Amino acid sequence: MFNFEIVSASKTTKARAGLLQTAHGAVETPVFMPVGTLATVKSLSPEELLDCGTQIILGNTYHLYLRPGCEVIRRFSGLHGFMHWDRPILTDSGGFQVFSLAKLRKINEEGVLFQSHIDGSEHVLTPEKSVEIQISLGSDIIMCLDECIKYPAGRDYTIDALKLTTRWAKRCKKAWENEGENALFGIVQGGMLKDLREISADALVEIGFSGYAIGGLSVGEPKDIMLEMADFTLPRLPDNKPKYVMGVGTPEDLVELVALGADMFDCVIPTRNARNGQMFTKYGTINICNSGFKSDTEPIESGCKCYTCRNYSRAYLRHLYMAKELLAYRLNTIHNIHYYISFMKRMRRAICKGKFDEFRKDFYKKRDV
Amino acid sequence: MFNFEIVSASKTTKARAGLLQTAHGAVETPVFMPVGTLATVKSLSPEELLDCGTQIILGNTYHLYLRPGCEVIRRFSGLHGFMHWDRPILTDSGGFQVFSLAKLRKINEEGVLFQSHIDGSEHVLTPEKSVEIQISLGSDIIMCLDECIKYPAGRDYTIDALKLTTRWAKRCKKAWENEGENALFGIVQGGMLKDLREISADALVEIGFSGYAIGGLSVGEPKDIMLEMADFTLPRLPDNKPKYVMGVGTPEDLVELVALGADMFDCVIPTRNARNGQMFTKYGTINICNSGFKSDTEPIESGCKCYTCRNYSRAYLRHLYMAKELLAYRLNTIHNIHYYISFMKRMRRAICKGKFDEFRKDFYKKRDV
Repeated sequence: MFNFEIVSASKTTKARAGLLQTAHGAVETPVFMPVGTLATVKSLSPEELLDCGTQIILGNTYHLYLRPGCEVIRRFSGLHGFMHWDRPILTDSGGFQVFSLAKLRKINEEGVLFQSHIDGSEHVLTPEKSVEIQISLGSDIIMCLDECIKYPAGRDYTIDALKLTTRWAKRCKKAWENEGENALFGIVQGGMLKDLREISADALVEIGFSGYAIGGLSVGEPKDIMLEMADFTLPRLPDNKPKYVMGVGTPEDLVELVALGADMFDCVIPTRNARNGQMFTKYGTINICNSGFKSDTEPIESGCKCYTCRNYSRAYLRHLYMAKELLAYRLNTIHNIHYYISFMKRMRRAICKGKFDEFRKDFYKKRDV
Repeated sequence: MFNFEIVSASKTTKARAGLLQTAHGAVETPVFMPVGTLATVKSLSPEELLDCGTQIILGNTYHLYLRPGCEVIRRFSGLHGFMHWDRPILTDSGGFQVFSLAKLRKINEEGVLFQSHIDGSEHVLTPEKSVEIQISLGSDIIMCLDECIKYPAGRDYTIDALKLTTRWAKRCKKAWENEGENALFGIVQGGMLKDLREISADALVEIGFSGYAIGGLSVGEPKDIMLEMADFTLPRLPDNKPKYVMGVGTPEDLVELVALGADMFDCVIPTRNARNGQMFTKYGTINICNSGFKSDTEPIESGCKCYTCRNYSRAYLRHLYMAKELLAYRLNTIHNIHYYISFMKRMRRAICKGKFDEFRKDFYKKRDV
């Protein structure tokens, strides 16, 4: 069911345009996946996501396992039926949240013991259980459970974590092969150390996955280090497989990572920033609270084709936001998701036309105005 | 521009089906007007309101005057352009909020001095100013400024308040006649005293308005007194004019008030209750938090044609609500507004078919199951 092919490639950079096939339809890459933590991309309906051009969304295994729980979602034959979204879904492994949100973690070879951040209840997440949960969610792309380390981290700890991640990846693959209806991606770890990133990438490629992700980036390190690590790691992953840089990023990050050969992205920035009033435009970001917008009859971005810009002014959006009206969060999120998705689509078109360099230059030029 | 005609009338009750014409289109009565306090019916888009069958919404003059202020809305030639709603709008006079929300009120013949509940700033609302603000909002139906009294209230105070309301109504009419593009409704006061309600109604009819409202009901009095006052007052208003019972009510209230000859209603119940998880169905209300709905794959109301019921289960709605997801408030509100609007439409159809009595009986019977 799962397939990936390169449709076009930039000659001057490593950027590539690809086509992913999943059980729930095709996905054109490079692609941005809005984050739908709790079976909802915060404030949006599935129809609005489609209207923004969304092709695939991300669900968070940790959150969904705790609320509403797999038993509930199984009654709907998975997340698609539960949340009324019939396009592809990628689920993370739960690892990142266990290591960032949950309390009292205890890691051993078997897995992680953790306490729910909601009610303190104890749970064990193992590689096998993570895969099992993701399969029960009906995920189209399953991620291997990995040990996510903090930044900065010492060399020895980083080595131990990546080795455990590798052993867990093997177990994930074994658990997944018994089922096999969905794709399984391995996650490269190794902190900010190139030799460790290489060891991790090689070990995962040796095991063999449907696609590969780079985890452990955008965790607090300087931007140039993030890009350096991605630049080093991406070419070490097989070119005929999709390459996913997890948890990244700003529009600038995306254009640079696409130039380095990344195909897939997810990030809470467009949705979270929308809820904080920060709106993306081709001329940079604006804050909708700005008092200069009080009587501004113009849309957020002139010429933008999103529902919000077609129908509402900055003044109205500022008013809703200042009054904490629920509609504010939705209208802002629609614009930001539309911005991100259109941005990726335009990048892809530029790659296919052999004009990615021009696209990139133009992107930065507009922001300098 | 403004017109009202009776299309059909029940023979066994005083229920009637009418047609209102306004500058922004026709409205079939009896009609329920969702409350759009701050230029938004909380959590809904205008398209969703239309999809629910909404014909006319209510805007709150007090709130809009304070935020975003008339200057801003004037830039959009009124509320319609500002909030992207091109159907009829009725605005209240601001009186009710001045008397219930604002601080440090001082009433005199001229008007009311009050402090904003937001920032404590001082403002004066006079009959002329209320009309002027409502005209600047582009309201299709303007309400006269009235003095709203608390329940219970003494006879002397009630008399003074209704007399002031009558004098203010005269001034509103004078201020409005200078403009005259919109309809102006008078508001009957008089507390829970029939003779005072009669005095108020007669005085307003004497002045002459495009339509008449009954204010000061549903302010804490027992339900039978509310209905008794409406029953007493409604026939004292001209039958060839629309009759509006303000701030009411539950579905039970609506069916009874329609039976007494009321044409128009507004209330925060469907929207506010939706945000508290209380959902209306033909079998009574349910609370979406109910743990019995945890794995329930059924919609809120089987057979309901609203967007929410067509696409989502009780289990999903419960999950969203428990997780305080923004989408919860919207999906719940869509269902409740659809319930209220469909309820009114079915009532109207029953009146036109001469079957209002059956409708009313069936309504109560289903709730008893």
